[in-house]
Amino acid sequence: MSFNHVRMNHMVWKEYAARKDDIIILPIGATEQHGPHLPLCVDSVLAEEFALRLADKVNGIVAPTISYGYKSAPLSGGGPLFPGTIDLNGSTVQAIITDIVDEFVKDGFTKIFILSAHFENQAFILEAMDLMSQKYEAMGKNIQLVNSNWWDPLSPDCLDKVFTEVPFPGWAFEHAAVTETSLMMYFAPHLVRENEIKPSKQAEPGTYFKYPIEKDIVPETGVLAPAVSSTAERGKIIADDAIENLVKICKKAFK
Amino acid sequence: MSFNHVRMNHMVWKEYAARKDDIIILPIGATEQHGPHLPLCVDSVLAEEFALRLADKVNGIVAPTISYGYKSAPLSGGGPLFPGTIDLNGSTVQAIITDIVDEFVKDGFTKIFILSAHFENQAFILEAMDLMSQKYEAMGKNIQLVNSNWWDPLSPDCLDKVFTEVPFPGWAFEHAAVTETSLMMYFAPHLVRENEIKPSKQAEPGTYFKYPIEKDIVPETGVLAPAVSSTAERGKIIADDAIENLVKICKKAFK
Amino acid sequence: MSFNHVRMNHMVWKEYAARKDDIIILPIGATEQHGPHLPLCVDSVLAEEFALRLADKVNGIVAPTISYGYKSAPLSGGGPLFPGTIDLNGSTVQAIITDIVDEFVKDGFTKIFILSAHFENQAFILEAMDLMSQKYEAMGKNIQLVNSNWWDPLSPDCLDKVFTEVPFPGWAFEHAAVTETSLMMYFAPHLVRENEIKPSKQAEPGTYFKYPIEKDIVPETGVLAPAVSSTAERGKIIADDAIENLVKICKKAFK
Amino acid sequence: MSFNHVRMNHMVWKEYAARKDDIIILPIGATEQHGPHLPLCVDSVLAEEFALRLADKVNGIVAPTISYGYKSAPLSGGGPLFPGTIDLNGSTVQAIITDIVDEFVKDGFTKIFILSAHFENQAFILEAMDLMSQKYEAMGKNIQLVNSNWWDPLSPDCLDKVFTEVPFPGWAFEHAAVTETSLMMYFAPHLVRENEIKPSKQAEPGTYFKYPIEKDIVPETGVLAPAVSSTAERGKIIADDAIENLVKICKKAFK
Amino acid sequence: MSFNHVRMNHMVWKEYAARKDDIIILPIGATEQHGPHLPLCVDSVLAEEFALRLADKVNGIVAPTISYGYKSAPLSGGGPLFPGTIDLNGSTVQAIITDIVDEFVKDGFTKIFILSAHFENQAFILEAMDLMSQKYEAMGKNIQLVNSNWWDPLSPDCLDKVFTEVPFPGWAFEHAAVTETSLMMYFAPHLVRENEIKPSKQAEPGTYFKYPIEKDIVPETGVLAPAVSSTAERGKIIADDAIENLVKICKKAFK
Amino acid sequence: MSFNHVRMNHMVWKEYAARKDDIIILPIGATEQHGPHLPLCVDSVLAEEFALRLADKVNGIVAPTISYGYKSAPLSGGGPLFPGTIDLNGSTVQAIITDIVDEFVKDGFTKIFILSAHFENQAFILEAMDLMSQKYEAMGKNIQLVNSNWWDPLSPDCLDKVFTEVPFPGWAFEHAAVTETSLMMYFAPHLVRENEIKPSKQAEPGTYFKYPIEKDIVPETGVLAPAVSSTAERGKIIADDAIENLVKICKKAFK
Repeated sequence: MSFNHVRMNHMVWKEYAARKDDIIILPIGATEQHGPHLPLCVDSVLAEEFALRLADKVNGIVAPTISYGYKSAPLSGGGPLFPGTIDLNGSTVQAIITDIVDEFVKDGFTKIFILSAHFENQAFILEAMDLMSQKYEAMGKNIQLVNSNWWDPLSPDCLDKVFTEVPFPGWAFEHAAVTETSLMMYFAPHLVRENEIKPSKQAEPGTYFKYPIEKDIVPETGVLAPAVSSTAERGKIIADDAIENLVKICKKAFK
Repeated sequence: MSFNHVRMNHMVWKEYAARKDDIIILPIGATEQHGPHLPLCVDSVLAEEFALRLADKVNGIVAPTISYGYKSAPLSGGGPLFPGTIDLNGSTVQAIITDIVDEFVKDGFTKIFILSAHFENQAFILEAMDLMSQKYEAMGKNIQLVNSNWWDPLSPDCLDKVFTEVPFPGWAFEHAAVTETSLMMYFAPHLVRENEIKPSKQAEPGTYFKYPIEKDIVPETGVLAPAVSSTAERGKIIADDAIENLVKICKKAFK
Repeated sequence: MSFNHVRMNHMVWKEYAARKDDIIILPIGATEQHGPHLPLCVDSVLAEEFALRLADKVNGIVAPTISYGYKSAPLSGGGPLFPGTIDLNGSTVQAIITDIVDEFVKDGFTKIFILSAHFENQAFILEAMDLMSQKYEAMGKNIQLVNSNWWDPLSPDCLDKVFTEVPFPGWAFEHAAVTETSLMMYFAPHLVRENEIKPSKQAEPGTYFKYPIEKDIVPETGVLAPAVSSTAERGKIIADDAIENLVKICKKAFK
Repeated sequence: MSFNHVRMNHMVWKEYAARKDDIIILPIGATEQHGPHLPLCVDSVLAEEFALRLADKVNGIVAPTISYGYKSAPLSGGGPLFPGTIDLNGSTVQAIITDIVDEFVKDGFTKIFILSAHFENQAFILEAMDLMSQKYEAMGKNIQLVNSNWWDPLSPDCLDKVFTEVPFPGWAFEHAAVTETSLMMYFAPHLVRENEIKPSKQAEPGTYFKYPIEKDIVPETGVLAPAVSSTAERGKIIADDAIENLVKICKKAFK
Repeated sequence: MSFNHVRMNHMVWKEYAARKDDIIILPIGATEQHGPHLPLCVDSVLAEEFALRLADKVNGIVAPTISYGYKSAPLSGGGPLFPGTIDLNGSTVQAIITDIVDEFVKDGFTKIFILSAHFENQAFILEAMDLMSQKYEAMGKNIQLVNSNWWDPLSPDCLDKVFTEVPFPGWAFEHAAVTETSLMMYFAPHLVRENEIKPSKQAEPGTYFKYPIEKDIVPETGVLAPAVSSTAERGKIIADDAIENLVKICKKAFK
Repeated sequence: MSFNHVRMNHMVWKEYAARKDDIIILPIGATEQHGPHLPLCVDSVLAEEFALRLADKVNGIVAPTISYGYKSAPLSGGGPLFPGTIDLNGSTVQAIITDIVDEFVKDGFTKIFILSAHFENQAFILEAMDLMSQKYEAMGKNIQLVNSNWWDPLSPDCLDKVFTEVPFPGWAFEHAAVTETSLMMYFAPHLVRENEIKPSKQAEPGTYFKYPIEKDIVPETGVLAPAVSSTAERGKIIADDAIENLVKICKKAFK
């Protein structure tokens, strides 16, 4: 499915202008190592795929995906020492989100959904949203800014359906592991090296942060928990559940 | 106990200069609402008290506490709508930490521990640490920067000992609840209004963030989980366990 | 042709790491109105398509495209008053380029080509390059930064081959006009609304800039010169010529 | 005297919220060398002590003290070469004051007094005040921002009463000298090493500034004028006079 | 001619205040190498001279000239490797223009003309104008900001009258060449070393930018096209034509 | 006297390049109200005139004057409410000084003298110098940065010779008063409206700062102390004495 009807990118300007009362979704991912079996674009692909499906359900439109994100942390993404992990500074993430959303607002949009698929983006998305929201209020503009991702809204029982063979290692370690791998097998199977999915050790939780970053706290492959047992079917379970709950968020949050 | 021997504040400059090979601890708290029974200074008091005790054990010294922190989030601190919650922007938190640590480094210190007692400070402390660490490496300086708090290092069984009467609501909701209240009863009992500790509803977890912030997602009192069952004894259990583990972190992380 | 072998996005991190001695190409486009017949993504599509073909010829790799660019100017892109034109501030463009290139450098790359398909990006790309280059020199790093686009390198006679039916209006007015339309018909014909290509008036050159921007200085459609006579064949002529010359630039500039 | 009734720090949020029509005082000091007889916290202690006493008289409240200040200058504070002098950049001082005052304003306060006890903070406090004031005026908010310290408001004859044994060296050199030492002996005698108060040479005035800073322009001890003749009684004379005049300022300036 | 009656510099404040309904012209030049025959101040002299003559015709006033500008580019000004070329960063150019114009606006001026005589200033002047204009609109202020220079407004046939002996090399290479040299011979003949005007090679156009800048792409003298044939008479032709057209711009643009 | 031999502005680039071992002087003034008898350019004229004379004596060269300075304070310059007082933000003053000095350093200069004639510039000049100096030290560059003005270096008895008819009001109030007026009568008599020099009230010292600025704290004319008794002869006394002492500073400070 192409989802061409929801891609802002593919619209001419008058088509876009006519949609200003709809929800506009800004996907933000990252360019980040995802082990030997997943490509660097995982977070950007997931952000875009979820955004397209959500837009399809809520009559929204999807802005071009931001393909670079905030710095990968060792114990949730492998960290900056892996080649291919392209880390933006926090101020840059804030600036790009702010500038883009400001333009949506100038174009008349009032319902804006920032959909992230990279955990580490969170704090800087919220900082941007807070500062923008204060600015819009001072200008007397009534703008609704919503942020979520694909993991926080999952139904409580969804993980039970997915983790029937291996235990859920916690979200921090779900990096290049069962959920991301299954989603990629469902959304973009041609980008998954299935024969590189192998049993591996799980990273151990940390109780502190140290800089310069210590190399040995992350498995050498960059996989934080084993991806074994990933399937496209499990990817579909997650995707369907997340979309259903993201639709509910849109209905509840945008008034 | 006054802990005067570890307070940088109370030293004359030659005493401080003589300590440059020791660990220097920078406490950072916040000024933030903590319900009807705890004062606005809870996070700053806790940051300082843990820092003093840690310094006492590891022969460290404690820099003056930063009493203001990053923006309170609704579902981990009540959020910005409460009077008395004084929110710094993220760039300001980064700047103040960076400037202070740069000065420690100019004075010859190489082992620097940033001890936070306000959850929301986390992302901006790490951003500051990352940028400083890159700078020091470019300058050929070997500086070790460590960050932790009092909750992440707790032993797995510590919470079992504390939550014998009420269930543990998760760390996000432990705001003005049993752990913070017990710690304040242990460290600074004169600042606790015990008769204001009352049964209350627990906040409900959110699956998205919205700005402008919705007022009704946080209990009116600002207490995110009931503080009932808090005691100074429970505070001591937490404090002793946290200190013991913070000491271990210092031994492991600083080389 | 998929050009999968040159897309950084589709590589796993070890594949990317193995390419560090090759040229890495960073495409930057824009999200900008392009009249009634071309979609908002023209500049991003062109940046990416040229980057992929160039990489294919010089054994380079292509980083994820930056889909948002600097502010559209009225007399070279229609300007900010058109919905769908998403303008980043200059400081944001500088920051995103700087952060990404810094990461390539940390990963060991030394030959970096920034390929823009949006005229207005120019000054801020150069400012970023200048500041980075000074920084790398101070660090003793030998990094070569090159910037070009698809129009400056064209052979003198290329335009003669393209503009056989209508006169060349000058590059400023080649917005949504014959060159861009022909290139899109060649690279992405499914995104072109051919029946919307109609005779239209050419914009008139300005001798000054005024803010607030005057609405009536740009044709209402956003097309600055007529796109009539555009064909995929003409697109191929431009593309082939540009690629040939971009390859020459790579050979000459990277030592 | 504890002054607990005026400490914002010790209030719960509803107590603070109820005080929004009162004057809120923000003390800002520094962490700075003060010779062999005074601790690094002198400026922060003085800022806080004056703030508490002033609040007590004008029914104001005192926000948590900012314990770090702008860069020490050689000929008014000894300068950056002394260990223990922790210098914030000017932009950081501006940011922290701005963020905090903005929050007081959001909480409904309109009478804000920034009380500094570190001379070098002056220019950056004023820059912050000017920029905030312009912002509030643009927002249509009527906010009164006042700044003073403990030395400018002193009555003309106050110094005559204090300097009966040694001559007044001018305010620039009153660093770790008679006024600061006497005030510390009055406010915090346990922090003064009285046996380290010794006759010393006075610094010589400069007619230019040079960077890198020349080490030999400041006495090796960091004391810019002799502290000999300091007493708690003299401290009380200064304190009482300053408070009396600060109260007058509040009455005159806040309307 | 002294043009004293239009120089803001020479007015007392009440004279300036009385002119607030007139056009205020802010000249911005540069300090930049101009070969062996022209001084470093060429761009600043030209900016000021054009501003004075324009003000004289439109009853405007001229603010003090900004004597430093944005970074010289190799193929339009010789570039940063020439001593005497003093390059401001783009953010600095934006800041100085913004601060000055903001002050004109506070003083009641609404018609502001930024007159540049240094090509490279362009992008950063426009960025400043755009951001200011958005700010003024948000404040409900009706401020008209206009920018031009002396070359864009020239009549089509003016260059024909000037380039009767040598061909016009294009504006980029008109650096220290016939137009600038002739204008200096007309405006400030005592600053021209006529015996240093010699036949020279013209720079060759570039199709890409590279950093670090390659030294050999610019003629060693810094002259980008020969200045031979320059005369004061030709300078007058250019000056008169430019002024006439700048006057027309003022009449058309300011309403 | 034209001082052409010391003006960087009038040099061609090779003349400037040959002077890199000499002292380079950067004058910074302001555009600021100076009452009914002095023009807005007083501080810029004085900065430049002192710089030229100093350069003449020490074989230095003088860079183009910065004609805009930091914000005028009410009780040292009349303040921002006077039309014609053009106030730069502190960060802008820092940026412009930093960028210019960085360029001198790239051109090989190591002895840099920043000569201000506007009191309020002080703090931001020093902040720029401190940050630059730290940067140069990190780069291993030995650069000497000196800052002074024309009033701090005056000999103790100089004021006695000048103030024979009226008392010296203190430097803060010497705004548009006897010293500045006498210097302008000496350096630029054609710019002084002598018949507007009239007896006037002296401003009264303040003990606090308030924003928004109170209009009535400054005499309506903008003159802070009477200019009566000003003469060109007195101007010469000040000028000669200041130059003599500035020469001594150069000899002492630059090594």
